[in-house]
Amino acid sequence: MKLTPRKVQIREVGPRDGLQNEATFLATEHKIAWINQLSQTGLSYIEATSFVHPAWIPALADADQVMSGIDRVPGVAYAALVPNIRGLQRALAANVDEVAIFLSASESHSQKNINKSIEETLEVLEETATAALAAGKTVRGYVSTVFGCPYEGEVKLDAVLHVTEKLFEMGVREVSLGDTIGIAHPRQVAEVLDEMLKRYPAERLALHFHDTRGLAMANTLLALEMGISTFDSALGGLGGCPYAPGASGNLATDDLLFMLDRLGMETGIDQEKLRASARFLEEKWGRKLMSHQMQIC
Amino acid sequence: MKLTPRKVQIREVGPRDGLQNEATFLATEHKIAWINQLSQTGLSYIEATSFVHPAWIPALADADQVMSGIDRVPGVAYAALVPNIRGLQRALAANVDEVAIFLSASESHSQKNINKSIEETLEVLEETATAALAAGKTVRGYVSTVFGCPYEGEVKLDAVLHVTEKLFEMGVREVSLGDTIGIAHPRQVAEVLDEMLKRYPAERLALHFHDTRGLAMANTLLALEMGISTFDSALGGLGGCPYAPGASGNLATDDLLFMLDRLGMETGIDQEKLRASARFLEEKWGRKLMSHQMQIC
Repeated sequence: MKLTPRKVQIREVGPRDGLQNEATFLATEHKIAWINQLSQTGLSYIEATSFVHPAWIPALADADQVMSGIDRVPGVAYAALVPNIRGLQRALAANVDEVAIFLSASESHSQKNINKSIEETLEVLEETATAALAAGKTVRGYVSTVFGCPYEGEVKLDAVLHVTEKLFEMGVREVSLGDTIGIAHPRQVAEVLDEMLKRYPAERLALHFHDTRGLAMANTLLALEMGISTFDSALGGLGGCPYAPGASGNLATDDLLFMLDRLGMETGIDQEKLRASARFLEEKWGRKLMSHQMQIC
Repeated sequence: MKLTPRKVQIREVGPRDGLQNEATFLATEHKIAWINQLSQTGLSYIEATSFVHPAWIPALADADQVMSGIDRVPGVAYAALVPNIRGLQRALAANVDEVAIFLSASESHSQKNINKSIEETLEVLEETATAALAAGKTVRGYVSTVFGCPYEGEVKLDAVLHVTEKLFEMGVREVSLGDTIGIAHPRQVAEVLDEMLKRYPAERLALHFHDTRGLAMANTLLALEMGISTFDSALGGLGGCPYAPGASGNLATDDLLFMLDRLGMETGIDQEKLRASARFLEEKWGRKLMSHQMQIC
């Protein structure tokens, strides 16, 4: 078993990807208090919000106040999703540390999600990335629908490789390969990574799994075996479908941490503090988190 | 990635392990109707009930009626858990196909669970296995708490190897290694299997995971990579803790099947029919099943 203990980076995306589709608005003050708690857990990276236009994502309409309001802990990078120059200006004004740009590998998903083709999006992203780098920020790139598209089904690996290459050409530090609809399976993860690792070092790739079909952890294990050391996850498995309360969202940070700890991987994160921050969120939000760690009886 | 497509055997344990701790009694006629539906899905093995004394497991107090009442489909083996000669007599009277005997690898768990030491249990099991074989039945052996004990914590691999060897000496066809409290992690699975596979062919070993901490599927993937082809699971993830409705039980058959299908493994099971049998159970039982497949929105 090729699971040599090593450092693993967790990118906590709960405050952004976790909350963005939730029907229950989490008050700005609670978002800030929660992110401040997350900052004390040992996490080194928190995607705090999204500067997408508030009309698109009402749940994160308070991005400016959140990003400006959180206490900055040295050693923690606070990132935000940014769709374009306008969003970048807001993010810079709120003193973001890292700018996360995003696009889809599927043409239909791109059109339906942001009303732009992939090529049009690449132009916008290049402009945004250039400006972010000029402002002294690092940039992260997200590719969504890497493993499947809700409209097209299969997504060609060539399309994924194309947009990944474009993102790296723009100067992004890391590309996160997203299983947007939670359809990836381990053999597919192996196929995508086989090609990616011929082109890029493992350190520049992250994987972003949703647990819709229960395979997020198995996919993570496979990626770990192939040398990947960076994973996106959301505390408590936030990010489920708003129409099905029990449905799984992102891979849960607390569940991921449990596995990584048991595998002897170093994350620097304290499970007890992480759990406390999950209980805090449950209390302030009045909702139960669905991760396994939060159900243990 | 060493996941060569091959035949994988699923042992459906929902009617026994799934139901045994559930607080809501499923009426006998519904149990029978449900097992009859399961028999039509392509499953080749169903553990239908338990002939443990009804006072111990009230949820399965109707074992005789269930085992006698189900329609036998050719090609499907109907098994039952049997603790001793008395249970075996009941199981034989109800025309069981395969007798499943069980013991714990942990002394404290053995004492608390069945009020007998491991050595005392081995005597009872040997008598039971011998009688079952003499009656022309095949026998399956379960080892519980292989990966951890609720009372002792760590369980020594030597203890697991000892009881496994004893079971094979009794003439069992297959030993199922059980993660009773859902604490196993992939590296531990690799360590246990490394030793097991030095002693026994993969075909004689099954793995039985509970998803308490969200690692059942990752553990399954690791076991598949190491050549294991037999897994116990319960439809819909039945078998959660009765005190925490959201808590995970057994690895869910429907989720497992989704992964196996995507990996190109052959199971002979029809996902749609399986799902229909899960919906049937939800309706008759008045409870929602917690597998990922049953939450997809």
